[in-house]
Amino acid sequence: MIVLMSCNDRPGIVSILSDIVFRNKGNILDLQQHVEIEENRYFMRLSIDNSTLTNDSKNKIKEEINNSFIDFDAKISFFDEITPISIGVFVTKESLPLYDILIKHNSGELNCNIPIIISNHEDLKYIADNFNIPFAHFSIDADSKFDQEKKIIKILKDYKVDLVVLARYMQILTSNFVKNFTSINIHHSFLPAFKGKNPYKQAWDKGVKIIGATAHYVTEELDEGPIISQDVFPVNHNFSVKKLIEVGQNIERRVLTSALKSHLEHKIIIYKGRTIVFY
Amino acid sequence: MIVLMSCNDRPGIVSILSDIVFRNKGNILDLQQHVEIEENRYFMRLSIDNSTLTNDSKNKIKEEINNSFIDFDAKISFFDEITPISIGVFVTKESLPLYDILIKHNSGELNCNIPIIISNHEDLKYIADNFNIPFAHFSIDADSKFDQEKKIIKILKDYKVDLVVLARYMQILTSNFVKNFTSINIHHSFLPAFKGKNPYKQAWDKGVKIIGATAHYVTEELDEGPIISQDVFPVNHNFSVKKLIEVGQNIERRVLTSALKSHLEHKIIIYKGRTIVFY
Amino acid sequence: MIVLMSCNDRPGIVSILSDIVFRNKGNILDLQQHVEIEENRYFMRLSIDNSTLTNDSKNKIKEEINNSFIDFDAKISFFDEITPISIGVFVTKESLPLYDILIKHNSGELNCNIPIIISNHEDLKYIADNFNIPFAHFSIDADSKFDQEKKIIKILKDYKVDLVVLARYMQILTSNFVKNFTSINIHHSFLPAFKGKNPYKQAWDKGVKIIGATAHYVTEELDEGPIISQDVFPVNHNFSVKKLIEVGQNIERRVLTSALKSHLEHKIIIYKGRTIVFY
Amino acid sequence: MIVLMSCNDRPGIVSILSDIVFRNKGNILDLQQHVEIEENRYFMRLSIDNSTLTNDSKNKIKEEINNSFIDFDAKISFFDEITPISIGVFVTKESLPLYDILIKHNSGELNCNIPIIISNHEDLKYIADNFNIPFAHFSIDADSKFDQEKKIIKILKDYKVDLVVLARYMQILTSNFVKNFTSINIHHSFLPAFKGKNPYKQAWDKGVKIIGATAHYVTEELDEGPIISQDVFPVNHNFSVKKLIEVGQNIERRVLTSALKSHLEHKIIIYKGRTIVFY
Repeated sequence: MIVLMSCNDRPGIVSILSDIVFRNKGNILDLQQHVEIEENRYFMRLSIDNSTLTNDSKNKIKEEINNSFIDFDAKISFFDEITPISIGVFVTKESLPLYDILIKHNSGELNCNIPIIISNHEDLKYIADNFNIPFAHFSIDADSKFDQEKKIIKILKDYKVDLVVLARYMQILTSNFVKNFTSINIHHSFLPAFKGKNPYKQAWDKGVKIIGATAHYVTEELDEGPIISQDVFPVNHNFSVKKLIEVGQNIERRVLTSALKSHLEHKIIIYKGRTIVFY
Repeated sequence: MIVLMSCNDRPGIVSILSDIVFRNKGNILDLQQHVEIEENRYFMRLSIDNSTLTNDSKNKIKEEINNSFIDFDAKISFFDEITPISIGVFVTKESLPLYDILIKHNSGELNCNIPIIISNHEDLKYIADNFNIPFAHFSIDADSKFDQEKKIIKILKDYKVDLVVLARYMQILTSNFVKNFTSINIHHSFLPAFKGKNPYKQAWDKGVKIIGATAHYVTEELDEGPIISQDVFPVNHNFSVKKLIEVGQNIERRVLTSALKSHLEHKIIIYKGRTIVFY
Repeated sequence: MIVLMSCNDRPGIVSILSDIVFRNKGNILDLQQHVEIEENRYFMRLSIDNSTLTNDSKNKIKEEINNSFIDFDAKISFFDEITPISIGVFVTKESLPLYDILIKHNSGELNCNIPIIISNHEDLKYIADNFNIPFAHFSIDADSKFDQEKKIIKILKDYKVDLVVLARYMQILTSNFVKNFTSINIHHSFLPAFKGKNPYKQAWDKGVKIIGATAHYVTEELDEGPIISQDVFPVNHNFSVKKLIEVGQNIERRVLTSALKSHLEHKIIIYKGRTIVFY
Repeated sequence: MIVLMSCNDRPGIVSILSDIVFRNKGNILDLQQHVEIEENRYFMRLSIDNSTLTNDSKNKIKEEINNSFIDFDAKISFFDEITPISIGVFVTKESLPLYDILIKHNSGELNCNIPIIISNHEDLKYIADNFNIPFAHFSIDADSKFDQEKKIIKILKDYKVDLVVLARYMQILTSNFVKNFTSINIHHSFLPAFKGKNPYKQAWDKGVKIIGATAHYVTEELDEGPIISQDVFPVNHNFSVKKLIEVGQNIERRVLTSALKSHLEHKIIIYKGRTIVFY
């Protein structure tokens, strides 16, 4: 069982938590914490060995933790790592991030179900077919977006999708969609530099000596959501826009897969627009 | 002798250049070129073995090159690498970039003269003293800036300074100053992200997972000049602003020294707000 | 047309070369050179715009270059970048490097033909099938190795393979094979550290704080051939051997694809066990 | 107060520890743990807010922790972070690592005393003078080493030195010395590659594409002690040995200072020749 908790900081939190687990015969596999001193805020990820727990002791642990921190302005989530999260992958034409998710799902590195791939183009259907995953195509333009998204939302709910992964999906989601699903996006720049369109061209025009990619949660403001993972690559004047794109694609997939993995393993807490990503 | 050239691209440029050098008995040590195809623009750095040249052959090479490319919209500079550039180092309170320049000047890694260190505070005078370099202090506020800068410009001209190096100098230079001197600045962020004040605080607020520093030529627009060198360091939620500053300072000095070295070795061509930095 | 040349260094080489190209109406797109001063050895990669050449002028350029440097102990290779190299990819069970080659071949980033995939196991046949590439399986043990390799060599010759790419092929090639084909291998460590078996386990035992991967040409001595490309990733005590393998696999594919690309674009010269890799 | 502990893993360790701290009115600022599952071994760093402790409660916490884990094959150390460690810095001729330690000591980043600098040459005495730190010179050759080291050991004991920092000290310490002092060394290669002499030359000969530096504890076997910190820099065929040394020196100082900082902040546990370095 995994517990993610954020609460006001006070002495004795670890003692209370570990005592609850110990009395219920659980064994703590891992406990990571973080304190933001200025905010007086405490963050924690607790991993308890499932083999030491029964359904009964799980429920008692949940109940006791919830009760103990009721006055600490706590936000607490409990996860059963045995039940994988279901993700819907959104793509357009770029294949690398999609391939990476599917390959690492196959190898067992990504602990999730992938019931559906959604796209506004049909270009990548052959990849979905190769991996035997349903592929739903919705052509989208400004006029049709809202209605098409309603259909997409219905499909995602039918497939019981918990998390949307935008693997270079070249459409901006409506705020209605954003409210309905937690989504992770990959933006092909080192945010907050080069938001919006054609970031590699923007980077080239600016003459930067390093390019990057950023995986972040989607919020209503474009490319402004909490950053989960970033990586970079050194470049120079020899890199044309085409070459920036080529090396950038390697960074994009790496960063997206890494962020997705942290989410699937319940390692992320969002607080005030920033993320705590436990290792 | 080093030649930096930028001109319209046409077949035969290398042939013309190498023929000129060869006929004047010079030996090419290194020839690097770059073409921006969309711009049809050719960039080149040519290094000719000084021991194969006389004053006479140098002059003939200069004259012939200038004449040969007169119709190519060429910008050509000739440098004698034996004569080091004189730099004026501007500092405020942070010691690391200043130390790095002085240490690497002492070790011979930076081929320059350092006739003067300028500061708006007296905090780092002891370092200048330790390295036996004159230190001039000018307290500056909004009212006094223009007049104080005039005095600074006079000193720099007296000391025959070719290049101003802003090693964490916490004053914005007036456009009058910028016009008078080529200057290299270190900005303590990964530009174009986090321009202006307190970039580490900005980075912390945004929750980025990588921080950086940028060395760039100074133009009249703040933190917008051509980027010479950038480097980064991975960070996470455990990094307080104080710790971001600590690791950032290591990046700053590295990036500034590296950019300065490229300039001193005549490896940089500026074109349309970007730099070509030959290796 | 691309020319790779290594020869004894003397004044005037560039002049001779560029003059030959110019007189034959060729346009130099790119000229990179490198000198090893201690060895008095000159290395060069010359790229001439094919649209400015005829078969006739190509032949004349080849002949004139060969003749001009006959006394310089020169090794000169001429390549027609229009004709892609044919590669045979060798795999065992790990899928990531194979996928990466196939995906980037499909996207046009790797300019080659892939007529055949060879494996000592059948595990990855489905990937070859998905990408419509013939897959040949040869089970290999100590006794059968020599005979099986003879069959493999025959197949490779039938398919006119120019280059063998060992994409995590878990068999050591015989010296007979090595003599027959130029091969690029990926070794899953930062060579020369951790040669041989289980490098991630070796790295874990040693407690290194960075792991890496190395792409190199294959020679008769195991993991000792000229290094083409290396990359690394920071790790710490939290990384189990399993996790080292996971992050290592991302480095492996990146390093192998990058090395392969340099080879396919005729950018590599081998000299005394080291490589010059032009950018 | 900081507690470093390594012991056999059993359920309830965190509960026992946090209960002890809580009952003695201490507030846990930070608790980091690590488990090596194959070894069934538990590692922990506990930081307790000093302002919540009295001398009395400190002693009780120590006593109770020692007693509680007596059967767990525990190794427990208690540190008072208010009392800085005293270090003796050993140097020869390279100035960068020494400067870095002194600068960062001055800025408060390194929480230590530096009562003495020891050298087998006088080249860097001026730096010690500039920073007002005693400098002791001992010329050393094969014959005199043992006797000179005895004098050095006496000086270090007179100055109450807790930790020896070899900041590019170009002498191999005798096993007698190694037994007397905990020492941190910087080796100018990415260990375990290129042990021993002239690692940059070794790296150049091998043609590696990345160079590195390694800070490690000193053991009797040369360059084999537990690794604390490593960093790297990408290089290519353009890097002469001289240039490898130049960029390498930047890595060396960074790696040494970082390792030293981790030691001074009591963040390192050594186990079976590897280090756990808490963040």
